[in-house]
Amino acid sequence: MTDPRPTACLLVIGDEVLSGRTRDANIQFLGQRLGELGIPLREARVIPDDRAVIVGTLNEVRHRFSYVFTTGGIGPTHDDITSECVAEAFGVPWVLHPEAYAEMAADYARRDPPIEFNAARMRMATVPEGASLIRNAVSVAPGFRIGNVYVMAGVPKVMQAMFEAIAPTLAGGVPIISRTVHAAGVYEGTIAAALGAIQAESPGVSLGSYPYYRAAGTGVAIVGRGTDEAAVEAAMARVAAMLRAAGAEPVEGEPE
Amino acid sequence: MTDPRPTACLLVIGDEVLSGRTRDANIQFLGQRLGELGIPLREARVIPDDRAVIVGTLNEVRHRFSYVFTTGGIGPTHDDITSECVAEAFGVPWVLHPEAYAEMAADYARRDPPIEFNAARMRMATVPEGASLIRNAVSVAPGFRIGNVYVMAGVPKVMQAMFEAIAPTLAGGVPIISRTVHAAGVYEGTIAAALGAIQAESPGVSLGSYPYYRAAGTGVAIVGRGTDEAAVEAAMARVAAMLRAAGAEPVEGEPE
Repeated sequence: MTDPRPTACLLVIGDEVLSGRTRDANIQFLGQRLGELGIPLREARVIPDDRAVIVGTLNEVRHRFSYVFTTGGIGPTHDDITSECVAEAFGVPWVLHPEAYAEMAADYARRDPPIEFNAARMRMATVPEGASLIRNAVSVAPGFRIGNVYVMAGVPKVMQAMFEAIAPTLAGGVPIISRTVHAAGVYEGTIAAALGAIQAESPGVSLGSYPYYRAAGTGVAIVGRGTDEAAVEAAMARVAAMLRAAGAEPVEGEPE
Repeated sequence: MTDPRPTACLLVIGDEVLSGRTRDANIQFLGQRLGELGIPLREARVIPDDRAVIVGTLNEVRHRFSYVFTTGGIGPTHDDITSECVAEAFGVPWVLHPEAYAEMAADYARRDPPIEFNAARMRMATVPEGASLIRNAVSVAPGFRIGNVYVMAGVPKVMQAMFEAIAPTLAGGVPIISRTVHAAGVYEGTIAAALGAIQAESPGVSLGSYPYYRAAGTGVAIVGRGTDEAAVEAAMARVAAMLRAAGAEPVEGEPE
């Protein structure tokens, strides 16, 4: 079955995520927000600050997905190479953007004391030729878009501001509806056959089963997702009845 | 420069990570532990519970990396399809493993009340033909290894126990040494040129620069990584001196 909806891929660019120094938070944020926009995140890939890898990966995924988002590697230091790699992937020059330059110069001059607009900071005003800026309320240094590739900061607060700036411009699909129930004291293995039967009879709904282990107890959370709200609700009603038949008490939402 | 060290790729398999329902913790854990073993994690890819994607991705990455680790999708429910996809990728039958079966049967019989060893649970004793089990102290249902692919649970506590069971069997490389200093009140853009100069004169050391924004203040953390401890220490001594010259006070370790 081909999926007519737009699709998204996220490239998390940064040695610090692969080394375990930093725990990524951007996959989760973008997965949630893109789902709400009806642009399901179909792949997220964490890659190093390595020119050949970044260029090669970009050129692979930008032809396979409707949208590609990148996070990380657009700061002023030597290890921030995402922007020039995007230019290389698109085969265009990497050039100073006059408006980005002017906005950053004005911002730096306003600071007390003023911030020097040195060569390192000018890298943050340099983008692939033809790119449009992603301005945001948190950072004067912009992200940018070229073709179907959206290049954003790695710092979650800045990335989120950049994403919300572009979200209204994305051609979304039908929003994905998600419903969750959980039930304490029940094993996945006990309900697996009954759940599989509900899945088989619920076309267009995707049912996921996730055990949980909390201080307050263990159990199973069942998540139903799909674009047809009535179908999702009907499947989840069957899930709740099935859990009751198994002697458990279904509770709406995720476990505490 | 070709890297003679073994390399690792992680496949995080699960719709729940791509939808944002679950924030992955396995990339960070495995990135850290593999670095300690001298097997740098070079890529992590989050992919959906989709047979064609799992099989295709496995067959791509298992030829490109020394080791491939997977997390997720080996439970008893209909959405747990990793194990059968690994069999398909390797072109081998997916068969009940007699020892896994016997161990799980014994464990389930011992419980009070006993757990029924039904068809769903038997899926967790079914592995690609020729696979060897990854037993662990947390879960009686095993992971498994086939070729250079290590298939583990998605629940972090279970995954970590499985990884520690196999860690002694991995042919590691030279461990990666990591050192961090941070300095409050300094901007990345201010020190970028001086840091880039140190990087240029520190072959074999990888310097990363990461701004931080904490309630206690903002600043920059500099991470030096490499296999030659003396070279890492020398580069970090130059970083500390550079930060002092910039009017900042370098402090060892990550910021609080």
